[in-house]
Amino acid sequence: MLLHTLYLVGIVAEAMTAALAAGRRSMDWVGVALLGCVTALGGGSARDVLLGNYPLAWVKHPEYLAFTAGAALLTILIARVMHHLRWAFLVLDAVGLVAFTIIGCDVGLRMGVPVPIAIVAGMITGCVGGVLRDVLCNDVPLLFRAELYASVSVLTGALYLGGLHLGLAHDLVMAIAMTFGMTLRILAIWRKWNMPKFIYERDLH
Amino acid sequence: MLLHTLYLVGIVAEAMTAALAAGRRSMDWVGVALLGCVTALGGGSARDVLLGNYPLAWVKHPEYLAFTAGAALLTILIARVMHHLRWAFLVLDAVGLVAFTIIGCDVGLRMGVPVPIAIVAGMITGCVGGVLRDVLCNDVPLLFRAELYASVSVLTGALYLGGLHLGLAHDLVMAIAMTFGMTLRILAIWRKWNMPKFIYERDLH
Amino acid sequence: MLLHTLYLVGIVAEAMTAALAAGRRSMDWVGVALLGCVTALGGGSARDVLLGNYPLAWVKHPEYLAFTAGAALLTILIARVMHHLRWAFLVLDAVGLVAFTIIGCDVGLRMGVPVPIAIVAGMITGCVGGVLRDVLCNDVPLLFRAELYASVSVLTGALYLGGLHLGLAHDLVMAIAMTFGMTLRILAIWRKWNMPKFIYERDLH
Repeated sequence: MLLHTLYLVGIVAEAMTAALAAGRRSMDWVGVALLGCVTALGGGSARDVLLGNYPLAWVKHPEYLAFTAGAALLTILIARVMHHLRWAFLVLDAVGLVAFTIIGCDVGLRMGVPVPIAIVAGMITGCVGGVLRDVLCNDVPLLFRAELYASVSVLTGALYLGGLHLGLAHDLVMAIAMTFGMTLRILAIWRKWNMPKFIYERDLH
Repeated sequence: MLLHTLYLVGIVAEAMTAALAAGRRSMDWVGVALLGCVTALGGGSARDVLLGNYPLAWVKHPEYLAFTAGAALLTILIARVMHHLRWAFLVLDAVGLVAFTIIGCDVGLRMGVPVPIAIVAGMITGCVGGVLRDVLCNDVPLLFRAELYASVSVLTGALYLGGLHLGLAHDLVMAIAMTFGMTLRILAIWRKWNMPKFIYERDLH
Repeated sequence: MLLHTLYLVGIVAEAMTAALAAGRRSMDWVGVALLGCVTALGGGSARDVLLGNYPLAWVKHPEYLAFTAGAALLTILIARVMHHLRWAFLVLDAVGLVAFTIIGCDVGLRMGVPVPIAIVAGMITGCVGGVLRDVLCNDVPLLFRAELYASVSVLTGALYLGGLHLGLAHDLVMAIAMTFGMTLRILAIWRKWNMPKFIYERDLH
């Protein structure tokens, strides 16, 4: 129940970042709504298509599409004040990342995949939406370049599945994993933590 | 039967626009053929993968691939005169858009998805091919930036499903929806109708 | 068995080219590992999703992900000497292309698709990983622009399926098809064979 609420927070946060990215590319209102839906629901859709888990969430619950498109369009109205909300926004985005990750792990477990793949399912749920957003905006995905995002997702998923494996109470494990993931994500943004970069300039051909 | 013919018109028109886009990126003949296939058949494939509707159309009918690749390669020969055919071409493209949309709605209905998702299935069928084309050409998809394209598809699908819901004869509803969609699409190009744009220049991070 | 070994050679070679591409975009270590996995396993995954062949290889064998990510990360260490290994590397890449192609054809046959679609399944297996790599690096895919790559894959698949159709021994057919494909690929690079290009500069709209 709580997880479902946090999921809704997450899709709203993802739809709103997508709307701002759409605005930076001067997309029209249709583009804003579409990019919001693809970004917010694309991670879960990619997971379900890769695992063969039908029907997809938004096919069963068309209201998610309306909700997401609505959040994206609303962003147009409040864009002017969004930078004042920067920190609130990054927190909501972190909530979304960890909620998506845990939901993805749960789907993986329910489908009986090996544990490492359940962690990957969590990471795909948390991260692929942003990759699709960046590809559609003609950017190299941020996920591949900077910030601890995929790593936060993987560590959160590993902690969650590890806790369940140890037989701890489900709600406790979830609370610990989410707190850990959100703290790590927010610290990483605040302290500007980054993974080392690989720079290569030759052309092999 | 008529719808099937219009579908073939649509995949030819999509393959030919894709071939011209390939030419603008100086692709080779293989690239022209591949981009033609992805553009013409990508919308229906995306719909079927998202809905879990197997086997895909071109898997059952490999001749669609030959047909599409052939249309793309033929475009290389007639590229020199294509701009004289501009309006004929835009009409064929509009035919394709509405035919794809109605076929997509039908697939959705047949799979028993909720009505709004049947409309979305129509839109995915009509629009995703062009998005894949633009992504593979390293452009921000036109669908997100300009023209009434997704909106024409959604309105056509809604009119079609609304008419069926009212219990009108199937062929009549199809004729009305297609005429409406094509008229709207052609008017939109002719009168340069566009959705309002959202322009945002700050960086949230 | 041999084919499985060549498959592993292929995913290592693809992961390593992906790592160098990631380095050219200054991606971080997470990006290098992710791009390696997507490139090496993306072709087979695309084939399986399009054919509805579940579960995907890496879902059943999570060690493929570790293996691929490991090869990509190892490339960071040996990047400095990679250009000395250029030809070894192109040979391994050719091995991967033909092995992927034949595995893809086999999957198609096993699923009972029409013969032309089995060839397409081979081509998707061999080529889509590199397309995903280029899209994520914000390039127009090399596959569409230059080199004999898709064509080598299609000819290899056609030769393989043709040989099986003639009732020749499986291992013999495989050896012939692989030798042919690798020779053609390496000749094409060495002699800089290219398909003719289609260049079109007008804007239809």
